[in-house]
Amino acid sequence: MPNRLITLTTDFGTSDYFVGAMKGVIASIAPAARVLDITHEVAPYNILEGAFTISETAAYFPKGTIHVVVVDPGVGSERRALLAESAGQFFIAPDNGVLTLAFQNAPHPYKNRPPKVRVITNPKFALKDVSRTFHGRDIFAPAAGHLARGAKPAQFGKLISDYIRIEGAEPTELADNRWRGTIIKADRFGNLITNFHIDDFFAIKTNPFTMRAGSVVIRRLALTFSDAERGELAVIAGSSGYLEISANQASAARELGCGPGSPVELEIEVA
Amino acid sequence: MPNRLITLTTDFGTSDYFVGAMKGVIASIAPAARVLDITHEVAPYNILEGAFTISETAAYFPKGTIHVVVVDPGVGSERRALLAESAGQFFIAPDNGVLTLAFQNAPHPYKNRPPKVRVITNPKFALKDVSRTFHGRDIFAPAAGHLARGAKPAQFGKLISDYIRIEGAEPTELADNRWRGTIIKADRFGNLITNFHIDDFFAIKTNPFTMRAGSVVIRRLALTFSDAERGELAVIAGSSGYLEISANQASAARELGCGPGSPVELEIEVA
Amino acid sequence: MPNRLITLTTDFGTSDYFVGAMKGVIASIAPAARVLDITHEVAPYNILEGAFTISETAAYFPKGTIHVVVVDPGVGSERRALLAESAGQFFIAPDNGVLTLAFQNAPHPYKNRPPKVRVITNPKFALKDVSRTFHGRDIFAPAAGHLARGAKPAQFGKLISDYIRIEGAEPTELADNRWRGTIIKADRFGNLITNFHIDDFFAIKTNPFTMRAGSVVIRRLALTFSDAERGELAVIAGSSGYLEISANQASAARELGCGPGSPVELEIEVA
Repeated sequence: MPNRLITLTTDFGTSDYFVGAMKGVIASIAPAARVLDITHEVAPYNILEGAFTISETAAYFPKGTIHVVVVDPGVGSERRALLAESAGQFFIAPDNGVLTLAFQNAPHPYKNRPPKVRVITNPKFALKDVSRTFHGRDIFAPAAGHLARGAKPAQFGKLISDYIRIEGAEPTELADNRWRGTIIKADRFGNLITNFHIDDFFAIKTNPFTMRAGSVVIRRLALTFSDAERGELAVIAGSSGYLEISANQASAARELGCGPGSPVELEIEVA
Repeated sequence: MPNRLITLTTDFGTSDYFVGAMKGVIASIAPAARVLDITHEVAPYNILEGAFTISETAAYFPKGTIHVVVVDPGVGSERRALLAESAGQFFIAPDNGVLTLAFQNAPHPYKNRPPKVRVITNPKFALKDVSRTFHGRDIFAPAAGHLARGAKPAQFGKLISDYIRIEGAEPTELADNRWRGTIIKADRFGNLITNFHIDDFFAIKTNPFTMRAGSVVIRRLALTFSDAERGELAVIAGSSGYLEISANQASAARELGCGPGSPVELEIEVA
Repeated sequence: MPNRLITLTTDFGTSDYFVGAMKGVIASIAPAARVLDITHEVAPYNILEGAFTISETAAYFPKGTIHVVVVDPGVGSERRALLAESAGQFFIAPDNGVLTLAFQNAPHPYKNRPPKVRVITNPKFALKDVSRTFHGRDIFAPAAGHLARGAKPAQFGKLISDYIRIEGAEPTELADNRWRGTIIKADRFGNLITNFHIDDFFAIKTNPFTMRAGSVVIRRLALTFSDAERGELAVIAGSSGYLEISANQASAARELGCGPGSPVELEIEVA
C-alpha cells in the first residue's frame, strides 16, 4: 500500500467535529496515509478563496499528493463530486469551480496540459449512508482514502469536460490600460490580495500606476513589506505572484475597510 | 511497537503552547505514534460540547485508536483521571462526564456494551513533576503515549463504575408531545445543534411541529441546507443525527441570538 | 533517511496558504519527515510571544527534533537566517531574538551549555526563487527539509556568536524588592502570563506580596485555578513556571484590560 499524502482544504473551521470525522474516515480506509491540514478557515462558502488557497499550495507538494478541497455551498443539491488529475497530483472536490485556479496555474512542465476530470459516481468509494449535509465526511474523505489505498482513478467514474469554471477570477479591461479587479482575500496580516497577477501586469515595475481600492489611491510599489514606512500603503508583488495592497506592519484591510470581493482598479501609464 | 493513532480533543485553543507541549510529550514517549487534532476549540470549560465533539468523531476512527479528551475545569482538584475502553477504542480524559455521549452513542455492534473504565493511578505513566494546572501535558498525554507504546490498560489502575455522567444531556418532557431541550453548540456556519436526536423525534418527519428558540418559531423541516431559501430558518436533521436550526447560507445563531446552553422547545402534533 | 520530526511555530495564522505551502515544501524535500504544528497563532510580529511559545514547548520533544520558528517582521531585509543546535535539538529561525528563551531555558543537562548557532548561507538549501516576502516557504521550510533528510549542520553556513538576543525579556529592578515586568501573553483562558519566573521570585510562596496590573492590586497566591472563587483574581505559578494572573473560570485579561506588553509591578515584603 503506498504511503500517500492527503491534504485537506475546507471552510469547515476547526471548532466543530467536521474535520475530525473526515480524518477518522481516512484513517479507517487508509491507515498508512498521512493527512496534512492546509487550512479549514476558508471563508464559509467562498469558492474563489478556496480556489486561491489550493492553487497557491498544491505546486509545493510532491507528485502523487491527494488534495481534498471542500468548499461546498451546494452540498445536498445535484452538484457533482469530482476526482481530477492535474500536474501529477490528485484533486477531490465538489464541481463548483473551486479547482479552476489550481488547473490554470499548474506549474511547468504541466502548463497548458488540461486536467483529467472524472465524476465520482461509484458508490463503493463513499460511506454506506451518505447524508444530505456532510459530503466532506461521506463522499470526499472516503474517495481520498480509497485512492490513497490504491484504487485507480478510472474506477471512480467517467471522464468529463464540462466541469464548472469560476467566472470573474480574472480582471476585466475597462479602457486602455485600465482594469477592474477584485480582492481575493485579506490575509492574516491584513494584506489585501488582488487578482492582478504580476506576470500579466509586469508594467507596474517600470511605469507609473495608480491602484484604487476603498477611498484610497496608491502609487507606490514596494519590494518587501519592510521597504515601506510603518503603516504606509504600498502595492507589493506578493509571494503568490498576485499584487497585494500592504501597510507595513499594519492592516491594509482595516485601513481601507476592504475585504474579499471588494473591487480594485488599476491604471498603468504608458509612455 | 504498534503504530498507534492518537487523537486530541481539547478546549486549549491553538494559540498557546499547551497543544505543542502535549504533542512533544507523546512524541518523546511513543515516537511511532501518529497524532491527529480533532479540535482544540471546544468552548473553554464546556464539558457538554466536548462530549458532543468526541461522540460525533470517534466512531469514524479505526479500532485501537486512542482518543485524548481534555476539557477540564476541575484540573488540580480531586477529580480523577480515566482510561476507558469503549467500542474497541481507548479514551483518556478527566472524570467529569466528557465521555458520556461517546459511551452512549457507541455504534453497532458495541451498542449497549458498557465501557470498561479505569482510574489512572500508576505514577509510572505520568510525567515526573505533575503540575497543578496542566494535566493535559503531565497526565493525559503521557498516558496516551505509554498506551500507544504497548502498556496494558490494567497497568494504569483499577476498574470503576462510578465515573461521572453528564446530567441534562437529554431533552426533558414538559407535557404530552412537548419537550425542552438545549442548544449543544453553534457550528462554524451558525447552525444551532440541539440535543433532540432524530432517532428519538422521528415524528417530525411526518407530523406538523413547532420548534421555539430565542423569540422565533420554526415549523419547516428541510432536507438539505440548500433546500431552504437563502436566510430562511428551518429545522434540519444534521449530519450528527441531532436536529439543527439552520438558515441557509446565513447564521441562525446570529439571527436568533442563541448559543450553547440556550433553551429550545419542541412540540409535535399528533393526529 | 531518518524519520525526523519537524515542528512549526509561526505567526502566519491558519487561514492563509502560508502554512500549507511550508508543509508542501517539507514533504517534497523530506517525504519521510513528520510535521507537527505547535501553533500558527503567535500574535503577528510578536517576537517575545514566539520566543515564549517555543521555549515552553521544545523541552518536551525528543532529541533530534527540528523546530522551525517563523515570526519575522524583518523578512526581506538584511536580517540573517539561523540554524541552531541547542539541548540536542535543532532550531531554524530568523535572527531576531526569537530563540533567546529556548536557549536560556535549555533543560538539564544542557543548562549553561551555549548553543551552536550558524547563519544559513548555502543556497543549495533554499528554494530556487527566493521571494522577498515569504522566507517561511523559501528558506526556513527547505532548510528543515534538507536537515531532516540528512544534511549536516556545517553545510548550511558558518558558526556565529553575535546572533540577536531579545532585550527586556527579564523583569527590571525598580527599588529594593520591587520589580517591573511585562505581560508576555494572555492565554486562551484569559490568564495573563508575566515574565516573572517562580524560580527567581520564589519568595512569594512565603512572604506577603502585591502584584499590580491595570488598575488592580492582587495579594493572593493560588495553587490551582479551581483554588480561588469563581472570578476571583489570584497569582498562580503557571504550568510554564512563570507567574500568571488568573481569574478562576473567567478571563483576567478582560477584567484587567491587559494584554501582551502591558506592564506589571511586583513587590515582595521582606521581614
